[in-house]
Amino acid sequence: MTEYKVALLGFGGVNRALTQLIADRNSRWADELGFTLKVVGVSDLYLGSIIDKDGLDAQALAAVPAVKGSFATLPGGNAEPANETVIRFSGADIVAEATFTNPVDGEPATTFCRWSLEKGVSVVTTNKGPVALHAQSLKALAQSTGARFEFEGAVMSGTPVIRLAKELLAGSQITGFKGILNGTSNFVLSSMENGLDFCGAVAQAQALGYAEADPTADVEGHDVRLKVAILANELLGAQLKPNDVVCKGISQITAGNIAEAAKVNARWKLIGSAEKQADGSISASVSPQLLPADDALSAVSGATNAITFATTLLGPVTVVGAGAGRVETAFALLADIVSIHNHKTASGKSS
Amino acid sequence: MTEYKVALLGFGGVNRALTQLIADRNSRWADELGFTLKVVGVSDLYLGSIIDKDGLDAQALAAVPAVKGSFATLPGGNAEPANETVIRFSGADIVAEATFTNPVDGEPATTFCRWSLEKGVSVVTTNKGPVALHAQSLKALAQSTGARFEFEGAVMSGTPVIRLAKELLAGSQITGFKGILNGTSNFVLSSMENGLDFCGAVAQAQALGYAEADPTADVEGHDVRLKVAILANELLGAQLKPNDVVCKGISQITAGNIAEAAKVNARWKLIGSAEKQADGSISASVSPQLLPADDALSAVSGATNAITFATTLLGPVTVVGAGAGRVETAFALLADIVSIHNHKTASGKSS
Repeated sequence: MTEYKVALLGFGGVNRALTQLIADRNSRWADELGFTLKVVGVSDLYLGSIIDKDGLDAQALAAVPAVKGSFATLPGGNAEPANETVIRFSGADIVAEATFTNPVDGEPATTFCRWSLEKGVSVVTTNKGPVALHAQSLKALAQSTGARFEFEGAVMSGTPVIRLAKELLAGSQITGFKGILNGTSNFVLSSMENGLDFCGAVAQAQALGYAEADPTADVEGHDVRLKVAILANELLGAQLKPNDVVCKGISQITAGNIAEAAKVNARWKLIGSAEKQADGSISASVSPQLLPADDALSAVSGATNAITFATTLLGPVTVVGAGAGRVETAFALLADIVSIHNHKTASGKSS
Repeated sequence: MTEYKVALLGFGGVNRALTQLIADRNSRWADELGFTLKVVGVSDLYLGSIIDKDGLDAQALAAVPAVKGSFATLPGGNAEPANETVIRFSGADIVAEATFTNPVDGEPATTFCRWSLEKGVSVVTTNKGPVALHAQSLKALAQSTGARFEFEGAVMSGTPVIRLAKELLAGSQITGFKGILNGTSNFVLSSMENGLDFCGAVAQAQALGYAEADPTADVEGHDVRLKVAILANELLGAQLKPNDVVCKGISQITAGNIAEAAKVNARWKLIGSAEKQADGSISASVSPQLLPADDALSAVSGATNAITFATTLLGPVTVVGAGAGRVETAFALLADIVSIHNHKTASGKSS
């Protein structure tokens, strides 16, 4: 049985959920997936750090209170973060990077990814920053050291849209995509359809935990812009920086706009899209769009996400699924590890 | 550059479309997919047969008129079919099986699959018969000879639902699925929403080429029953024969039913579904169901297909896409070959 030693960077909801899955499901994974996971190190800006090359108790880790420095309460734990030590000295085979998204330069996550990949340690990440800004160089680095850089969770959490497009639609000639890629803004638009004005809808989203105290990144489209850059670069061969993506959010959409749309059986959605132009260039944008009822994205309500890929051979293919959630995003990390494992197993079969 | 020698069984719309793709896209595939395809043999019940181990002219093949015995007009061609000769003596690496679906015993397609797999020749097929009735034994046979048995096109044409569920959702714990898996019956229901009665809607579907002269298999759910058996066996570990799937079609749905549903903002859909029960057994059925507007399948209209997978870790994941079409189904065969190629390439990397 293969056992992968995993180091966790960031211990917010996602890596904590992954740790709980490890505690609960390792024996099931041994049967179903052909491997088990062992946590050998964790570092978190707020909780501190802990390393044990022989493996930490996943159940105890998952139960650590979300209190500053609380890793110090575990045997061998420390109240301070130690990202570099965890990456370089925990003996991990795989680093699960789930620190905060920095949309400006992708740091410090990008450095964490580099440290790992340089050592030949694969990285699985849910962090949009390093992927939107530095995917090309990180993938090249991974290739040069025989490591893998996987990031299914950077778009639509664990819903497998990147791998679907890259692997399963290979040869179909993807010419573009359009998606509802931010659950908060879609929830706000759905609430406005139910009668709230923009500010009331944002307040409701905040009360339910869907929106941050500062909702700007969500409602102004900045979060979607990162995802559009990731998908356009990965699937259409673009070389876009997030700022190259024309971006307009939903804050100018009024209750009147929503009502007018309903009269013609249409709905406003915040759409992130990119398209290959006739001259080979890629146009990419984020903007509110009025979708007719027969658009596959029109019926996608609330915090759900969806994306339609346009293909030459297969026509449109739409995937609807979770766009957020701790367990749903932790599943993205698991799926990345499954991909690493299957690749490794296939490579090893002939040896 | 890898070149796969392909033999085509059945030369109806699907394999003819694949042949046209080969004629048009081989050099693109060399760049994008890392392989090219060469047709070395074709056998068709109606058109006849032709073999050339050095490769047939794909453009000339694709242009052969759909006239009885017309392969005899090609150099070296024959007016009679020769399935066994094409399988055993064309030197093919891969057999693309796209003969007619026999829902009773899967023959003769199942025998064609066996002949191929016994020789270690991989099979890609869009034929529901062999998969619904004999997938387990055909997969075991393939495994024993080092061949692959791939059948993405048996459900939802080239829309990659089987591979999505098996590969990309591995570890998510799929507990069931429900889908709109027959475009003809969905088109009929959509037409009834537009005011036609059942017979008028069927006549319209026939006039547009969506329905056969005898529409029974589509509207009575027999086609969906095969697909439900395939998916339940493949994804949920069931061991169902198609007749184990409880089946009710849409022929009893009246214009009145449709109108009543519309009043409560709901829609009738022919749903094929299966679900893992608490005791580990699998329940599976085909029946008309009344879906509320917020069901992801509710908005799927016309000949489009869709399926929702229920998963424990990721919640529902819905895929909407083509369910039929010559090129769309030919893409399924291509996608199967891409999968075979990637597996082979990965296996070879370490050697």
